[in-house]
Amino acid sequence: MHALAYAQANSHKFLDELIEFLSIPSVSTQPEHKPDIQRAAAWLRDKLLLSGFPRAEVMPTQGHPIVYAEWLDAGPDAPTILIYGHYDVQPPDPLELWDTPPFEPTIVGNDIVARGAADDKGQLYIHVKAVEALKETSGSLPVNVKCLFEGEEECGSPNLAPFIQEHSALLTADVAVVSDTHILGPDTPSIVYALRGMCYVEVEVTGPDHDLHSGIYGGAVHNPINALCQMIAQLHDENGRVTIPGFYDTVRDLSPEERAELAKIPFQREEWLQETGAPTDWGDPAYTIIERTTARPTLDANGMWGGYIQPGVKTVLPSKAYAKLSMRLVPDQQQDEIAQLIREYLVSIAPPTVTVEVHYLHGGSGAIVHRDSPAMQAAFHAYTAGFGRAPIFVRAGGSIPVVAMFQKFLDIETILLGFGLPDDRLHSPNEKFHLPNFHKGIETVIHFMTDLGTRTSTD
Amino acid sequence: MHALAYAQANSHKFLDELIEFLSIPSVSTQPEHKPDIQRAAAWLRDKLLLSGFPRAEVMPTQGHPIVYAEWLDAGPDAPTILIYGHYDVQPPDPLELWDTPPFEPTIVGNDIVARGAADDKGQLYIHVKAVEALKETSGSLPVNVKCLFEGEEECGSPNLAPFIQEHSALLTADVAVVSDTHILGPDTPSIVYALRGMCYVEVEVTGPDHDLHSGIYGGAVHNPINALCQMIAQLHDENGRVTIPGFYDTVRDLSPEERAELAKIPFQREEWLQETGAPTDWGDPAYTIIERTTARPTLDANGMWGGYIQPGVKTVLPSKAYAKLSMRLVPDQQQDEIAQLIREYLVSIAPPTVTVEVHYLHGGSGAIVHRDSPAMQAAFHAYTAGFGRAPIFVRAGGSIPVVAMFQKFLDIETILLGFGLPDDRLHSPNEKFHLPNFHKGIETVIHFMTDLGTRTSTD
Repeated sequence: MHALAYAQANSHKFLDELIEFLSIPSVSTQPEHKPDIQRAAAWLRDKLLLSGFPRAEVMPTQGHPIVYAEWLDAGPDAPTILIYGHYDVQPPDPLELWDTPPFEPTIVGNDIVARGAADDKGQLYIHVKAVEALKETSGSLPVNVKCLFEGEEECGSPNLAPFIQEHSALLTADVAVVSDTHILGPDTPSIVYALRGMCYVEVEVTGPDHDLHSGIYGGAVHNPINALCQMIAQLHDENGRVTIPGFYDTVRDLSPEERAELAKIPFQREEWLQETGAPTDWGDPAYTIIERTTARPTLDANGMWGGYIQPGVKTVLPSKAYAKLSMRLVPDQQQDEIAQLIREYLVSIAPPTVTVEVHYLHGGSGAIVHRDSPAMQAAFHAYTAGFGRAPIFVRAGGSIPVVAMFQKFLDIETILLGFGLPDDRLHSPNEKFHLPNFHKGIETVIHFMTDLGTRTSTD
Repeated sequence: MHALAYAQANSHKFLDELIEFLSIPSVSTQPEHKPDIQRAAAWLRDKLLLSGFPRAEVMPTQGHPIVYAEWLDAGPDAPTILIYGHYDVQPPDPLELWDTPPFEPTIVGNDIVARGAADDKGQLYIHVKAVEALKETSGSLPVNVKCLFEGEEECGSPNLAPFIQEHSALLTADVAVVSDTHILGPDTPSIVYALRGMCYVEVEVTGPDHDLHSGIYGGAVHNPINALCQMIAQLHDENGRVTIPGFYDTVRDLSPEERAELAKIPFQREEWLQETGAPTDWGDPAYTIIERTTARPTLDANGMWGGYIQPGVKTVLPSKAYAKLSMRLVPDQQQDEIAQLIREYLVSIAPPTVTVEVHYLHGGSGAIVHRDSPAMQAAFHAYTAGFGRAPIFVRAGGSIPVVAMFQKFLDIETILLGFGLPDDRLHSPNEKFHLPNFHKGIETVIHFMTDLGTRTSTD
């Protein structure tokens, strides 16, 4: 029996197991769910052992544990893949907006509705069942497999980087595989090959050294809110291009080929506008909306505050005004250099009536995976086989911290083998996972492992 | 015996009474002090009766009571003055910063230190004792006197306007006198003859109709914080002049005489800068700092907020951004017209990528009292006699709500007969009142009533 046939024959069993998994309310941010987190980790370890992994264990961290498993009998010449997923879920609130209880998984049409269905239990479990199908039918796997399933993704993975650093030998691999993203549509598979990086700063503008009465000093003391507004207004030109000197110097240009590839992505401007609720689009007219949101760097004020922000009136001339500014970076912008550029620029445009401090809060590099690497080619063919259609290569506008961690601590690239859909309602009531994607996902991973094993051993 | 001699002979008695008054912790904003508020009102009524007012009573409101008193035997040809003050005080917190207990009045050098010493019990009591001195020595008063002492000034006087409206017949007067401000220095008496008005709006800018992920939409959806910053940056020109079309059209120009008078006010730029803690001054270079802060209209962002304003990072592209904008107005700007002008201007400069709403929150007209009116001339001569030096005419940058109420509901002007000093630490620990000002204040009010009675009866 072939692994694909096994997977089809066992689809009901696989679904029943997923329902069991989704019934455990493993909410990582709420202390009262700590026993559920532990139950979910133990359940997952047991299933990994039953599915053919000779080693599977719950490993402690400072917070919630990590479930680790491995099967390494493909030998030293076969490639090793490191599969990442997370077994924790978002809180289900607001409960009253759920049509069915979040931890009583319910089949609605072709979807399974439950908290964590797509993010990330359903996607994680695809890999476990693909391994089972391969092991049960051929007694072996085409590649070495390591699994790293964390329980703190929804609270910012505070213990993941230390764990990876501490266990870097254990986690050594040739490539990482993350299934925690979505494809363009149920019949439109896609592969994310680039992510944007981040440079996040907080700006603190000080005018007078204490809050003043605007009636007594207004008109002769520069208000730091007004001053900060003037400074932020100078961060973009009239076309929405960032005006920080040097900001675009290291941006890798889009080649005509890549622009042509990105233009294949189905896109309806009117639908997109409706999705945002914005009156119209904005930004550099030299680039398409897809290019602007994925392949071009940006600058956004993510927060701003100063003075009196409660209901009603207060006539304060505040001492300070603050803004949180983040820039999405693209290869080859470096977050440290960009932080320096924005700091110098803000200081240079600050009027003499205020002082300005720029605090670097957070940053990460963008990432691009070569579309012709063996793992990327294996993924391309696996999607084509699993979904009956060649995937579209897309870039994503956001960052995925674990990708940066694998790059930094293990020096490996990550293949984003996503199986979610854009309307899966992640973090919202009635989260769902499209069941055909669950089953096609298992087939796609079987193809991926098989293809990657062949591809590299013949290289 | 002359009233002035009586006042001098009884200065110790007057001070002892003030100490009694200051010992009552009549904090109006704290419910646990409600009995103290009632005790202070009853104490004040009793003292008014003992000081020569035939009628004095505690009148209820929806909140803390108003103490009303009157002496009307000067006859219908004599002018009637309405004296306003407040017997409630600010909370004394933070207690640990007081050198002496706030409700155990302590003489320190020439000052009496206690919560409410200058704001406003000490200034209020000046009038009670001036009346006593006049009554005890001549058996009569040169003018008719009505007293309106409220107990809610420190919580925003919520019941004062309704009370004045309801009792407008009782409160009919020719001029109001308010002693709740300060003079320039212990030896530099001054009279505030102009106040600025106010137009306070809240601006709400909406971009997308819900919060978006800046990684997914950043670069193609205009961020409302950035948009609002661009709009606020366009409210001033590079000289700090307000750019709203028509904003200055109705501003009454300063005459050369008035500018010369204002230039007499002692002013040290370096001291002023130190007081503010600002790096340097700001604003329209065509006007002096004193003119900018008192005789020219302004625009300040009193508050602004949008997006994520907690510690750390969140990459939200928010749906909305808000600002509270207030404009200090000068005669003859009208708050309703100015609200309309700023609304139209903000709508006109809003980019097509956002929508903007402007909500009118609060407003009031500026005020100017003619410097040659009988009451103002009486005040001028009274200060000259009481302090041995002619007062300087000054304009104040803020608003005093009760002045607007008297104008609106009783159609009378207000003389601001202040006796505080700039360093009285109002609302702060170690509030004090300069004792020579207490005694000179009583003499000044005796002169004021006497002069005003003569002046008007011979008019």
